[in-house]
Amino acid sequence: MLKSIYVYRFLKMGMCVQRHKEKGSFCHILSKEYYGHHNRSPSMYKKDKYGSLGVDVHKTGIASFKRIIDELFPEAFCPILKHPLDPSKGIILHEDGAGSKPIVSYLLYKETGDPRHFRGLARDVVAMNVDDVVCVGATPLAISDYIALNPFTLKKEELLGALAEGFSEVLRELRSVGSDLCFCGGETAELPDIIRTFDISCTVYAEVPLKYVITGSRISPGDIIVGIRSGGKSSMESFENSGLMCNGITLARHVLLSGEYPKKYPEIMCPEVKGYTGRFRLDSYIEELGMTVGEALISPTRIYMPLVLEILRRAEVKALIHNTGGGLTKCLRVGRGVAYIKDTLPEPDPIFLLIQREGKVDWREMYQVFNMGVGMEVVVDKENLNQVIDVCEKFGVGAQPIGRCERSSEGNSLLINSKWGIFSY
Amino acid sequence: MLKSIYVYRFLKMGMCVQRHKEKGSFCHILSKEYYGHHNRSPSMYKKDKYGSLGVDVHKTGIASFKRIIDELFPEAFCPILKHPLDPSKGIILHEDGAGSKPIVSYLLYKETGDPRHFRGLARDVVAMNVDDVVCVGATPLAISDYIALNPFTLKKEELLGALAEGFSEVLRELRSVGSDLCFCGGETAELPDIIRTFDISCTVYAEVPLKYVITGSRISPGDIIVGIRSGGKSSMESFENSGLMCNGITLARHVLLSGEYPKKYPEIMCPEVKGYTGRFRLDSYIEELGMTVGEALISPTRIYMPLVLEILRRAEVKALIHNTGGGLTKCLRVGRGVAYIKDTLPEPDPIFLLIQREGKVDWREMYQVFNMGVGMEVVVDKENLNQVIDVCEKFGVGAQPIGRCERSSEGNSLLINSKWGIFSY
Repeated sequence: MLKSIYVYRFLKMGMCVQRHKEKGSFCHILSKEYYGHHNRSPSMYKKDKYGSLGVDVHKTGIASFKRIIDELFPEAFCPILKHPLDPSKGIILHEDGAGSKPIVSYLLYKETGDPRHFRGLARDVVAMNVDDVVCVGATPLAISDYIALNPFTLKKEELLGALAEGFSEVLRELRSVGSDLCFCGGETAELPDIIRTFDISCTVYAEVPLKYVITGSRISPGDIIVGIRSGGKSSMESFENSGLMCNGITLARHVLLSGEYPKKYPEIMCPEVKGYTGRFRLDSYIEELGMTVGEALISPTRIYMPLVLEILRRAEVKALIHNTGGGLTKCLRVGRGVAYIKDTLPEPDPIFLLIQREGKVDWREMYQVFNMGVGMEVVVDKENLNQVIDVCEKFGVGAQPIGRCERSSEGNSLLINSKWGIFSY
Repeated sequence: MLKSIYVYRFLKMGMCVQRHKEKGSFCHILSKEYYGHHNRSPSMYKKDKYGSLGVDVHKTGIASFKRIIDELFPEAFCPILKHPLDPSKGIILHEDGAGSKPIVSYLLYKETGDPRHFRGLARDVVAMNVDDVVCVGATPLAISDYIALNPFTLKKEELLGALAEGFSEVLRELRSVGSDLCFCGGETAELPDIIRTFDISCTVYAEVPLKYVITGSRISPGDIIVGIRSGGKSSMESFENSGLMCNGITLARHVLLSGEYPKKYPEIMCPEVKGYTGRFRLDSYIEELGMTVGEALISPTRIYMPLVLEILRRAEVKALIHNTGGGLTKCLRVGRGVAYIKDTLPEPDPIFLLIQREGKVDWREMYQVFNMGVGMEVVVDKENLNQVIDVCEKFGVGAQPIGRCERSSEGNSLLINSKWGIFSY
């Protein structure tokens, strides 16, 4: 029985979502009436896998917050405000977390007793923040962390020790390639009555001279979208990435991992959510991944910042898109009146194929939740394409044109043409 | 049975804590050997009330993080780093949250169905951040929020709508008194497998010309500590404050509220923590408080910023201390070799007397957890005392000398001489 219906205008993405709450599970219906130019029936959105796990990729409800931000360029990847003391500069204060990735680290820590499994989360949260702000051409200057934890489920000093090592390592690495980013400390909150295990996020402060801001407003028909790989191993990295980054982890955990984990560690799950439905253990080695399921799930997010800054020095860039929450549909928030057409996407990394197959997840939803192997997108005109590819080659990271931009008469739109179907968003 | 012992050096506070984990409950033993000049036996710390609820006021474990912060003035109230692009400036990127206060708002929301009970939390987290950074003489320029929630226990859009209104209101208020603080947005994370109800925190970015930094290093013997009231109603406020601010809420909830709440809403409690032991309902009107228990618990934190900026314009200030986590012992982190002597403290606001009486909390612990009616301390020499009192009078906030500073031969120390005993920290 339908209990209540709310209608929200999704200001930024120019679409409207009707939200149905039904017996504790969430589903999303996009009304065609509001959704105008897209040829999809509402029933296509009736139920998504991620919604049933309590995660809303459509980000309903954020409109009330958008209204109170005095952003200079609403079409930019993240909000840029005027520096209160220097009108020639834009400032960005950006927050992002590791999603539910801490739960995977927690399970590995519990199973092995080794707190080093927490370490990679520092890289994750740094990546999630600095790579968002470089998308508007800004320079990250300062970063701080927020850790909320339940001291009854883990040893605070083991968690903090491992994370401090992780932050120290990643900041040293960034400094070695010329970054000025400084670590300003943060807050550790013990909240056993709120937090089941632990949560980690970061905030980055960045500045950009207003004349150098990248907003996506200069995207023109015919511009190329270059996709930069999220998986593999760059020349700056000492480990193989699964490509997963920090988004879709709740979905990945639930469809891959065995029900034994929530049984053994009830603190890793909300009682309203159905148990894990997967058939793997954390240490199950999967031939096609070339690593264990646990390794694939906690594989740290690539930091694109050094590569992006090099691209910005060598090419004229019209837009940058960090494919985090929203996956390959993240571009919808950038630019104005842009039809993104992605029709030459690379084969997704094996982790995405595994998640899709095991969870029987709709391909449409896969593209909305995961980066599908493309962690960063760069929009350039044809003349600048080779410079972008060259820089990626120098860093040992795969890159290729994945599509183009056209004009859209109404809001932004995205068409994905893949071997699994044609999807429009 | 003692399972494990860890020894941590508490770098900032110059003390060392041995941490004993015993059957899931935490207690703290301060070893005299490491704790030098204080005349206390380890047994005095064996068990504190707050520790048994999973909150460690001694902040063990943060040492690993302190090591990786390149702070310019380790004796200052919060870490100040050199601006990477302007060596004449210090920057602060500071994070703090509302503690477990969201649980009280959540209960009021559940009991009444009114999401406006979430609104005051915006004021709380703004206060917790801006009033920390003004303690080093810095100007807060930008603020962002982080909200992590469980969509199965509350309606996201109701929470976000109320909080957005709250942020909007408090920022408008601050702008009306000349603040440049801008709201830069934030992150909303749906993490039902990590978060039982919701958690809220903010990050503030602030700058200070290095020549104007207030570090506490100029504190001299004989300087006066002026205490500024946390309770009551200032000329800027439209409501009566209980004085509680955001710290000690876990302890206050557990000793005041009735066991019916966790029974009715099991999502508000960690299973490892004992149920509520109090005898009040949220709507119990308490004569001595002049408000209900619920109102006293969610009473928003006073924002001292406008008052403090006015004091800084009119007086030469040697130190400012925002009495948040650590309560009246927070001063221990400021300055070097300072013996703080607080012997003329005001009568604590009724909420603190109620918590102490109902929870039979040691007075020693009360001073370590709560601000006890003094939300902000200002250290000045005798010549500047009247200017501070005058400004507080102008804002309609009670203020009085609460003690003095002397020299300490070893680290900082604090002596509280109250009608309930003499306590040294």
